[in-house]
Amino acid sequence: MSEDEIPDINLKEMMMDERNANIKKNMEKIRHKIVIISGKGGVGKTTVAVNLAMSLASIGLRVGILDVDITGPNVIKMLGVDPKLKPRVDVDAKKFHPIKGPLNIKVMSMAFLTSSPDDPVIWRGPMKMSAVRQFLGDAIWGDLDYLICDLPPGTSDETLDILQLIPEENVVIVTTPQQVALMDARKTIKMATVMQRKILGIIENHSGFDCPHCGKYIDLYPPGGAKKASIDFNIPLLGNIPFEVEISQQGDQGLPFVLKYPDNKATKKFKEIVKKIREMLES
Amino acid sequence: MSEDEIPDINLKEMMMDERNANIKKNMEKIRHKIVIISGKGGVGKTTVAVNLAMSLASIGLRVGILDVDITGPNVIKMLGVDPKLKPRVDVDAKKFHPIKGPLNIKVMSMAFLTSSPDDPVIWRGPMKMSAVRQFLGDAIWGDLDYLICDLPPGTSDETLDILQLIPEENVVIVTTPQQVALMDARKTIKMATVMQRKILGIIENHSGFDCPHCGKYIDLYPPGGAKKASIDFNIPLLGNIPFEVEISQQGDQGLPFVLKYPDNKATKKFKEIVKKIREMLES
Repeated sequence: MSEDEIPDINLKEMMMDERNANIKKNMEKIRHKIVIISGKGGVGKTTVAVNLAMSLASIGLRVGILDVDITGPNVIKMLGVDPKLKPRVDVDAKKFHPIKGPLNIKVMSMAFLTSSPDDPVIWRGPMKMSAVRQFLGDAIWGDLDYLICDLPPGTSDETLDILQLIPEENVVIVTTPQQVALMDARKTIKMATVMQRKILGIIENHSGFDCPHCGKYIDLYPPGGAKKASIDFNIPLLGNIPFEVEISQQGDQGLPFVLKYPDNKATKKFKEIVKKIREMLES
Repeated sequence: MSEDEIPDINLKEMMMDERNANIKKNMEKIRHKIVIISGKGGVGKTTVAVNLAMSLASIGLRVGILDVDITGPNVIKMLGVDPKLKPRVDVDAKKFHPIKGPLNIKVMSMAFLTSSPDDPVIWRGPMKMSAVRQFLGDAIWGDLDYLICDLPPGTSDETLDILQLIPEENVVIVTTPQQVALMDARKTIKMATVMQRKILGIIENHSGFDCPHCGKYIDLYPPGGAKKASIDFNIPLLGNIPFEVEISQQGDQGLPFVLKYPDNKATKKFKEIVKKIREMLES
């Protein structure tokens, strides 16, 4: 790959009305769509997305997960899915099958389409938009109970695309207690509010943890910011997920923590959050 | 603000040859340009950028810092600069003056241009590109020893813009020891290599910390990944910066830690990194 191959903007990609119709048809077969957004990167969006997907799949629901982060796709790493797997193409229908992940969840990510995990995807906005539309419209998602969309940080292209392409999507905001994360989370709350999307609530990740040596509690950042944002914007605080050194030290590979560590504190907190989300959507 | 006001792509914005000439003229007056990139969000790019800028300014060098993160601008929060300050415009020259920050560093960020910190900047790629070009070309940066550019995560629009607009820029890669952060860091290293930009090296942030209660060391993530990437890609490992609970618990507001906590471990490690960078560029 050379610098000349870095693509320029291609407006043709945006004109695909047929694809929009495909997206609509696909989305009608999925009962609940949830988009996980944050504003700031590194706050645990992907962790929340994969654990939410696995929690729902573990009780027998039919679940899909779409990694909308085109340039930094981490979903399949966290699910322990092999990036060398390639989506099977249905040539006649001009469609493709998402990869089957653990507990039979359907997974689609840019990571399946690069030849090496080190390869950067150096794409401008419209190219990314086109990929997102293909993932939504040309993948054979089938009948699902839940589709979880894991977004990149920011309030630009991908976030805007997803919110515009799936108006009935429900929004979950992830933040840490760090002030700069909260600042950016507040921006995404305002974006979702302006666009009149349904916000399920805020999840505060990495709120603190117990020292693995002495057992005493350590606040990683000053607490209270997510609660304040939930009050300021009048949306639910879905819960706080503690940082777990035991989990992070194992690395990010393999099964999401709700399955790998069914009894630890983070899992218990997470299950309460899943319960709240299901009550909001299914009752 | 309503949904209708969310801007569409505007290709006119990209056609500004005059602006490119302005950028070139501005950049010629700046001896060293450093771009801080990561791949993944939340690894400490902005922390590195503001502490690098302040370290250089504290020894009498003339420093500018440009926040290239259009939708999640956190630089001025971390510098303790008031977002209500507005850049002074020179109407005749059709240019504007960056804001003066601590130690007289020149600061430019989208955060000065939004009316409230909660306001999201819902812009697609070309709009962001236009803002980045204005910041580089229409700001009166003057003669500087260093310009530090703090980028958003990813290998898309802003990163591509900066690397293409300032070919002589030096690249510093920030990562945490977390596997997904390293995966994304490797993509940015490959991007910078493909584009034949000069890579100064990798900084590993949040490598671990001492428990504030018992004093024992806690590894937040499995160690060794940044060193491995530095070997794999044959680029220097500039250093590791420990997580400091003392710093993070104070919040992100105010002076960068190199000035606020001149004697702690993170500051000492950081000063070694700055020394290495200066040796590479100034000797």
